[in-house]
Amino acid sequence: MLRLFSADDHIIEHATVWTDRLPAKYRDVGPRVVDEGHQEVWLYEDKRNLCMGLNATVGRPKEELNPDPIRFSEMRAGCYDPKERAKDMVLDGIYASVLFPTLPRFAGTLFLEFKDKELASLCVQAYNDFMIDEWCAGGPEGMFVPTIIVQLWDPELAAQEIRRCKAKGAVALSFPENAVSLGLPSYWDAWWDPIWRACEETGLVLCLHIGTSGTIPQPSPDAPDMLSYSLLQVGSIMSSVNLMMSPVCRKFPELQFVFSEGGIGWLPNALERADRMWLRHKLYANLDDILPSQIFRKNMYLCMIEEPVCLGFRDHIGLDRIMWECDYPHTDTTWPDSRSIAQSVFDEANCSQHEIDAIAFGNAERVFNWKMASADLTEASI
Amino acid sequence: MLRLFSADDHIIEHATVWTDRLPAKYRDVGPRVVDEGHQEVWLYEDKRNLCMGLNATVGRPKEELNPDPIRFSEMRAGCYDPKERAKDMVLDGIYASVLFPTLPRFAGTLFLEFKDKELASLCVQAYNDFMIDEWCAGGPEGMFVPTIIVQLWDPELAAQEIRRCKAKGAVALSFPENAVSLGLPSYWDAWWDPIWRACEETGLVLCLHIGTSGTIPQPSPDAPDMLSYSLLQVGSIMSSVNLMMSPVCRKFPELQFVFSEGGIGWLPNALERADRMWLRHKLYANLDDILPSQIFRKNMYLCMIEEPVCLGFRDHIGLDRIMWECDYPHTDTTWPDSRSIAQSVFDEANCSQHEIDAIAFGNAERVFNWKMASADLTEASI
Repeated sequence: MLRLFSADDHIIEHATVWTDRLPAKYRDVGPRVVDEGHQEVWLYEDKRNLCMGLNATVGRPKEELNPDPIRFSEMRAGCYDPKERAKDMVLDGIYASVLFPTLPRFAGTLFLEFKDKELASLCVQAYNDFMIDEWCAGGPEGMFVPTIIVQLWDPELAAQEIRRCKAKGAVALSFPENAVSLGLPSYWDAWWDPIWRACEETGLVLCLHIGTSGTIPQPSPDAPDMLSYSLLQVGSIMSSVNLMMSPVCRKFPELQFVFSEGGIGWLPNALERADRMWLRHKLYANLDDILPSQIFRKNMYLCMIEEPVCLGFRDHIGLDRIMWECDYPHTDTTWPDSRSIAQSVFDEANCSQHEIDAIAFGNAERVFNWKMASADLTEASI
Repeated sequence: MLRLFSADDHIIEHATVWTDRLPAKYRDVGPRVVDEGHQEVWLYEDKRNLCMGLNATVGRPKEELNPDPIRFSEMRAGCYDPKERAKDMVLDGIYASVLFPTLPRFAGTLFLEFKDKELASLCVQAYNDFMIDEWCAGGPEGMFVPTIIVQLWDPELAAQEIRRCKAKGAVALSFPENAVSLGLPSYWDAWWDPIWRACEETGLVLCLHIGTSGTIPQPSPDAPDMLSYSLLQVGSIMSSVNLMMSPVCRKFPELQFVFSEGGIGWLPNALERADRMWLRHKLYANLDDILPSQIFRKNMYLCMIEEPVCLGFRDHIGLDRIMWECDYPHTDTTWPDSRSIAQSVFDEANCSQHEIDAIAFGNAERVFNWKMASADLTEASI
């Protein structure tokens, strides 16, 4: 029976994640949910946000899929309740799960936009405390991989937060695939070094989720959103090649980057092209002898939902680079059929048991240094 | 001995391409070259442009490669002289070549920016007359595939130009991979229909070269240009998936699109992802039953310089979809070692003779409906 480690799932924050934790003076200005009768809405500072049920489509039939916001009561409880989530995971053969936020956006970039940066920093910390102390602690041992966000506007403060959270169990950091469109320096700039250094020292794995750069591929603004969804891997291509060529991993060689939801099939092309360009331009551009592909093979990992064709290229991708993911509760998720869908993907790509074990859980256990929940875990025991 | 059809090369326009053809009143305002002593420069309207030798690096040793502009006298004559070009081609085993402009940019988008659109239209026509009557006619039969540009700001005018040029031998149209960043409607908009209709009627093949959308992938503005070069395939990914999903080929099913210099290796991933998204979102988004991959297999072709690894995926790309290209005279070119480099790529990918023939010339002959120059052609006979 397939045992799965999902390298990418999403939580929906419950209504009092921030009001439970912010100091009194910030309770009316920090993120809070207001029921307006016809809808529930997040309010913070002078903003309104309908994101809470956005893409919380899990469990609905395909005919009803759509990206409209919904109320908490219309969502499956596994979206916002860790015990219910753990049951949903076990039901689907999933024994560990890396979790990304929703209201803060996948890499916490919402708080960058806060006018009051003291509030913003407290909101980042509140999310991390919620993630570690409430959500992860609320599930069975080994189920939820504590994944934090940081104060992106202040790398020194972010480094402190990384160390604070490491001390209480954080394992991964959700980080933007690129920050230039967010108004921040590029990853070629040493401005980011305090964060890279803190991750290297603490061993936190950097998870760069598609869609976190502040811009998405949109070749035709008048096309259905599905066009952008079909091109989101472009974010991972650009992010990974950018980082492969940048000084980041040359300066901090122990960093580990996971490109969450980016897929795997584009990698051989990206490496082949990047290495060819590196070799062709290195003489006049004063590049060193470490090829982009060598950085990839040491510092980077990819995630796959369903790519039976491209999984056939795994010898060129690197078996040790591929992690499976479920993407609960988004439209792309394989839940509640993850085992049968994953098995049919592995079968179609003619994977051996050794290969299946690596992709289904082995690589993620190694990279996140994480032992999945026991196979004895049942819905009843949660 | 390998015989090659190059689906993507570039000419450098000689200094009097436009002054030879524009009416007298426009000779001092249309494109013309001025020797400023330390450099030659193109002038037009109130603009200056140093593009003439940009990337005309052919024949220079790798140590000297760089993207700086150079003078005509420093360039290899094959850059701007069709007879010399033909000799360079034959020397390298190349018997047909699709040609893109330099000053007008690969898809003629420069003329979009002209204030005087009458002048701009005359410049488009002058380029096309030069291309067909001077450059192509100046080479041996079968060598140069007449490839035109059009008035992108006026689809009806462009359609007329397509028909005018078809009557005098045009075979292909160099067209932007995307026009949104150029300030024009998206390809989902029926605004473009006159051009699609004219191409379908005349059989002109649409060549969408990387770098023609008015924007290039630049994840880090402070990185060396090589980073952007390494990601230019992203333009082809976005362009092809955009067109696969758009109404264009559903409405004009005989169109043929070639993604010039975009590479091949990303295609299986792009198709696998696009089809999965189409099937997942089709119900609520009211999509039809023609999958993106079906559009690709009927209407689209890819070009490869050197991708030995990804050529191994040809069963998933489609043998009939792949064309070889030389990219003379840019930094990427395989000239003057095209035969040996191409052969080693084919060998590394274990291609059969049948497969080599399809990629080296057969597919291009079929798609462009073009008979390559005779193998008897020699440098001496040109």
